[in-house]
Amino acid sequence: MGHLTKTAVTPGQEAALQLLRGARSVLLTGHQRPDGDCLGAQAALSQVLTALGKTVTRLNPDPPEPRYDFLAARCPFPAWVPGDALPEHDLCVLLDCSELTRTGPLCELFEAASSSKLVIDHHVYEGDVWWDAAFVDEHCAATGLLVHRIAKLLEVQIDMVAAMGIFTSLVADTGWFRYGNTDAETLSVASELVAIGVQPDVLFGEIFQNHPAEHPSRVARMLNRVEYFADGRLALADLPLSEADGLEPVDTDDVHDLLRSVAQVEVVLLLQELEPEVSKLSARSKTSYNVAALAQCFGGGGHRRAAGATLHGALADTRQELLDAALVLFEREGKLA
Amino acid sequence: MGHLTKTAVTPGQEAALQLLRGARSVLLTGHQRPDGDCLGAQAALSQVLTALGKTVTRLNPDPPEPRYDFLAARCPFPAWVPGDALPEHDLCVLLDCSELTRTGPLCELFEAASSSKLVIDHHVYEGDVWWDAAFVDEHCAATGLLVHRIAKLLEVQIDMVAAMGIFTSLVADTGWFRYGNTDAETLSVASELVAIGVQPDVLFGEIFQNHPAEHPSRVARMLNRVEYFADGRLALADLPLSEADGLEPVDTDDVHDLLRSVAQVEVVLLLQELEPEVSKLSARSKTSYNVAALAQCFGGGGHRRAAGATLHGALADTRQELLDAALVLFEREGKLA
Repeated sequence: MGHLTKTAVTPGQEAALQLLRGARSVLLTGHQRPDGDCLGAQAALSQVLTALGKTVTRLNPDPPEPRYDFLAARCPFPAWVPGDALPEHDLCVLLDCSELTRTGPLCELFEAASSSKLVIDHHVYEGDVWWDAAFVDEHCAATGLLVHRIAKLLEVQIDMVAAMGIFTSLVADTGWFRYGNTDAETLSVASELVAIGVQPDVLFGEIFQNHPAEHPSRVARMLNRVEYFADGRLALADLPLSEADGLEPVDTDDVHDLLRSVAQVEVVLLLQELEPEVSKLSARSKTSYNVAALAQCFGGGGHRRAAGATLHGALADTRQELLDAALVLFEREGKLA
Repeated sequence: MGHLTKTAVTPGQEAALQLLRGARSVLLTGHQRPDGDCLGAQAALSQVLTALGKTVTRLNPDPPEPRYDFLAARCPFPAWVPGDALPEHDLCVLLDCSELTRTGPLCELFEAASSSKLVIDHHVYEGDVWWDAAFVDEHCAATGLLVHRIAKLLEVQIDMVAAMGIFTSLVADTGWFRYGNTDAETLSVASELVAIGVQPDVLFGEIFQNHPAEHPSRVARMLNRVEYFADGRLALADLPLSEADGLEPVDTDDVHDLLRSVAQVEVVLLLQELEPEVSKLSARSKTSYNVAALAQCFGGGGHRRAAGATLHGALADTRQELLDAALVLFEREGKLA
């Protein structure tokens, strides 16, 4: 793994390292509804900075999902409570996003704070620079992988909790090493983390085998409602409130995976009615079809291969509008091809 | 990855390397219904031996599943046709199993051949030694990984087809890096293969996203029939012929994955009626519960965490017998705990 320590550091990244080296008390934060990458990167950076003798606190706009309890038990992730002031800190680090607005209600508190601001991120960002320094690489598979690079550059040994954090980051953002961003560095660092003691099967159990007993029948209910369009290239399923079992929304990741496992399916659209006249779209693509462009038609957004939106109106109407828009995009793709 | 070339080689493994070095024409084979590890290892060893100037042929008792077409297109895997003689060879290599009987109808041909016999395998084997040499490591995640070690020891550079073969081996036998056998060597070699040019997302598409359009509804049909027993620790589903859609048996891997994703489920038993009075059991465990012991009650076998059997009798009776036997094992496990 020696090649990682020799990675060229840009002047911007060197400024980021200087900020980290010079800080005494550091507050780590991330985007709303923090995911595995956001949380894993915070856990890892916490250990690195603590090892350097700094005081570290974490404060997120939302609590972690229960699937990350195994990490939170070792590295708590307190969520902001309205009215609370920020803990004292001289450096604030925003992980896994580059827009301070994505911290939601915390944004104005951070803006008002006199602390230096550092961004560690791997997303494309085209806005203005508002930070003091940034450690950014858009080609890096996960923010946790950037923290791994930072640890090497700061010459801090990764401990077990940091290793679990970085592994969580990697598997969260690469779909457990299945997506196109799974590069040699990702797998080489994963190997290093397993050598430190991370057990992939145990983490898989914690993160992905923690569903309630109702989960399989919820998945089946949604699968039963699938219809195919565009010569089978588009799979669409809706789930009306009347078909839901009245608890929380269905975790649709498994439905997406199953529908994408059909050879000719390129695009999967799942539409869940959350309350009367309000539905949530989750869209996935496994080809060049850009689901972010589709989501944008309905005020949503995301990435080319994974996007979402909140749709208003009766489910039957919404579904038809969504289908029409999706088919128009297929026609355009066809013309471009 | 330098540590791999320094791996201690046992005298038995050195004898195996000598056989490979000395051979002129080599015939590679494997077990019936060859899986990704068996085929991937053959593809990789073919390249290694060809690079050393040897003539290499492959002959398997069965053809590969269509999901391995991407590999077979680059490295054909002819299946034996009854009546055919073996191609001329002075060394026969059996990959991914240690019992010659697992080559099925080919077994007696190999036994009659005057060629030297070499086994490359990672399974536990407690029978007599019948081979001339063996390159075996029961702790190795995949046979393809053993071929990677052999390539290093023989100082042959892995090419793109061999890299795809070894990657296929790794993901087939580690459940795409999710099982407990996913060790540091597995991930380190995977990293090396990606650096050579393997694209994990492309291989995932080839191997796991090649289902027919009927697949999701077949999965749903089986999920709809799940019942839980033993306080939710056991999930059991049967699929009578009357509920099947008349084509091939359901690929139950996704059903197993979904049911194991329920937190309290430890054991999943799926029973598919293949023809009247004949059902196929596939059993999986995610704890210490030994499904091989259960399968053995019905004349089947396998590993502690994955086993199978063919059951005879009316489905309803078979299902009850299976359930009774499974619950008895739970009671015994409980006493042992």
